[in-house]
Amino acid sequence: MSDLIAPHGKEERLMPLLLEGDELRAETERAKTLKEIKITSRETSDLIMMGIGAFTPLTGFMTRADWQGVCDKFTMADGTFWPIPITLSTDEEQVKEGDELALVDEDTGTTIATMQVSEKYTIDKEYECKAVFRTTDTEHPGVAKVMVQGKYNLAGPVKVISESYYPEQFKGLYQRPAESRKIFEEKGWRRVAALQLRNPMHRSHEYLAKIAVEVMDGVYIHQLVGKLKPGDIPADVRVKAIEALVDNYFVNDTVVQGGYPMEMRYAGPREALLHATFRQNYGCSHMIIGRDHAGVGDYYGPFDAQKIFNEIPKGALKCENLNIDWTFHCYKCGGMASMRTCPHGKEDRLLLSGTMVRKTLSEGGDLPAEFSRPEVVEILKEYYQNLEDKVEIKLHGAATGEVKNK
Amino acid sequence: MSDLIAPHGKEERLMPLLLEGDELRAETERAKTLKEIKITSRETSDLIMMGIGAFTPLTGFMTRADWQGVCDKFTMADGTFWPIPITLSTDEEQVKEGDELALVDEDTGTTIATMQVSEKYTIDKEYECKAVFRTTDTEHPGVAKVMVQGKYNLAGPVKVISESYYPEQFKGLYQRPAESRKIFEEKGWRRVAALQLRNPMHRSHEYLAKIAVEVMDGVYIHQLVGKLKPGDIPADVRVKAIEALVDNYFVNDTVVQGGYPMEMRYAGPREALLHATFRQNYGCSHMIIGRDHAGVGDYYGPFDAQKIFNEIPKGALKCENLNIDWTFHCYKCGGMASMRTCPHGKEDRLLLSGTMVRKTLSEGGDLPAEFSRPEVVEILKEYYQNLEDKVEIKLHGAATGEVKNK
Repeated sequence: MSDLIAPHGKEERLMPLLLEGDELRAETERAKTLKEIKITSRETSDLIMMGIGAFTPLTGFMTRADWQGVCDKFTMADGTFWPIPITLSTDEEQVKEGDELALVDEDTGTTIATMQVSEKYTIDKEYECKAVFRTTDTEHPGVAKVMVQGKYNLAGPVKVISESYYPEQFKGLYQRPAESRKIFEEKGWRRVAALQLRNPMHRSHEYLAKIAVEVMDGVYIHQLVGKLKPGDIPADVRVKAIEALVDNYFVNDTVVQGGYPMEMRYAGPREALLHATFRQNYGCSHMIIGRDHAGVGDYYGPFDAQKIFNEIPKGALKCENLNIDWTFHCYKCGGMASMRTCPHGKEDRLLLSGTMVRKTLSEGGDLPAEFSRPEVVEILKEYYQNLEDKVEIKLHGAATGEVKNK
Repeated sequence: MSDLIAPHGKEERLMPLLLEGDELRAETERAKTLKEIKITSRETSDLIMMGIGAFTPLTGFMTRADWQGVCDKFTMADGTFWPIPITLSTDEEQVKEGDELALVDEDTGTTIATMQVSEKYTIDKEYECKAVFRTTDTEHPGVAKVMVQGKYNLAGPVKVISESYYPEQFKGLYQRPAESRKIFEEKGWRRVAALQLRNPMHRSHEYLAKIAVEVMDGVYIHQLVGKLKPGDIPADVRVKAIEALVDNYFVNDTVVQGGYPMEMRYAGPREALLHATFRQNYGCSHMIIGRDHAGVGDYYGPFDAQKIFNEIPKGALKCENLNIDWTFHCYKCGGMASMRTCPHGKEDRLLLSGTMVRKTLSEGGDLPAEFSRPEVVEILKEYYQNLEDKVEIKLHGAATGEVKNK
């Protein structure tokens, strides 16, 4: 038996909803005969998370009772802990309970799953937003997505028939929970901390990961490869940068990299709980929660995402939070530190804003080695330079010749 | 109710054997009428550990059945986990079962406790040494003390009537478990890591403590103030050096200092278990176990003291080990690191032997800031300089005048 943490839910086993072999082929054929419903990128990524077992023990999109329980007390109708509603919406009036549907990703046209509609219901979207995002401000990107959802929610069991472009586009990075678990088991790991990542890894992230390496069996650097906000650095560049970091500054067999297809909701504390929930399915006993985890703007206190782990029912979630304070390089400490370990002042610390980092890199400048490893900076500089070139090409046409070998 | 870890033993409460008030006065008087037995500094310190509740749930020195169980399977006759025999020995032939004794510290002449002899028995000392120290080599300081023990062991309940010179000599540092627990509770701590210390705190110890600060509620820097090996730095100098470090490099309310009277046995792995056992009584949920914990010479593998926590019966000990690898400053990492987090070579790391450190300091030289904080180095230099002066005074007489203001 595995020493790894059990998957989430009463059955304590992974429940991937992705069909295989003959079943997959038959269902793919049958899907072509079903009524099609277009689904958003968020719904698509949630379906794939269900498909690979990352959302174990969900069997499909949530019912109204599930939705209400999750909003009010982090609990589905059957008593299972879950922190954020996983729902499907539509405006189609004619869909009714009992219908069989093919769920088609509106971005790619790929049929991701089939579904039997067990319930069609309406929700109070503002109510959901207040509960989940603590705001109804549509400037909040997560709120915005809920507010533009269809009039109706559809619940019911799904059969997933596609992982879309993820396995191909993120080959070697994209992982199913069964795969990460196998890797951890082969390494003999039991205590594994997940590091959530959607940006390149600077030294502050390295420090988080290394604290975890010091006290755990290993760290799972788990990158979001789902859809991003405009301006974010694409996954392939992030992967390259992280590989350079891991190769040069980590000890073999202390780190595993992986990618998952979920989209950010930027729900801060509630999303931290969701991150821990599906990381448990991936085999992680701990989830690193830093400053403003999964937050956006000023909607959440910097450590709300740590505190919420004390506010959920005890024992509801097996994966534990590994809280780490705001981290930075301190010249007086002579190394990386956090607000918990460095007693010095602002003037002793190296603090750079994201804007300043992007500006420096896109102008071809170097970041201080105390902020980011030179090997990482090189890769990011190259990316930003190419980006500039593309912009220049767009602005001036490719004929200027100016853009090469910068 | 306290959120702190419960004390060791079935009753889950502190059981200090030190009498107080009228009981103490009466027993002190009665002790004067009893037959006196001289006890060693190790036995004295064990008695005081029982007195203050640090050795909860022991009620006195161990019986033969306890001794056998502890040697063979870390377990006393009543099933309680205990890793090292806590025994009293004598050569006195005329002591017999049922006798009431006054136990007098041979070094200070202080009567530490009274005891009712419930059993007089002999042991196979080599057997104990093999089990506890993994060697019978009398070069091993712990083995040496067992081998010169008296012919007989005496078991039986004790009433402790003195803490000897500890409360006075180590005022503000020496603590009873009830005191440290009160401090932790006032701070609202629940997850507390103990850092065992018997040397000044250089940056490698600071790093151990800070890793624990990052992931726990706080760290208990717990110094041995029991008898030392010749050449060790005395507790008052260590305290001063640690205070300088804590004041300048730690955040308020992340660290508590304390001292305990036990003597080192240098039993490596078994002693690491003992350290964790009594730290649980002090209110610590975790015990930091670094490289060669409580070891001496080459008797133990560098991580035997970590491994042994997996070899004891599951659930036997509530206080968990917080394992940390060999730590040092790495110039390529640009900070403190361990063998688990630094992939670089020897040539990139700052590694100084204890001998080299002592030599540098006693010659008034500075240690690199990457090895030890300048504030700490100042205090140690002063100590070594005074020590040199004393040696010079001894060698040349005080009249040379040379020794002042060096």
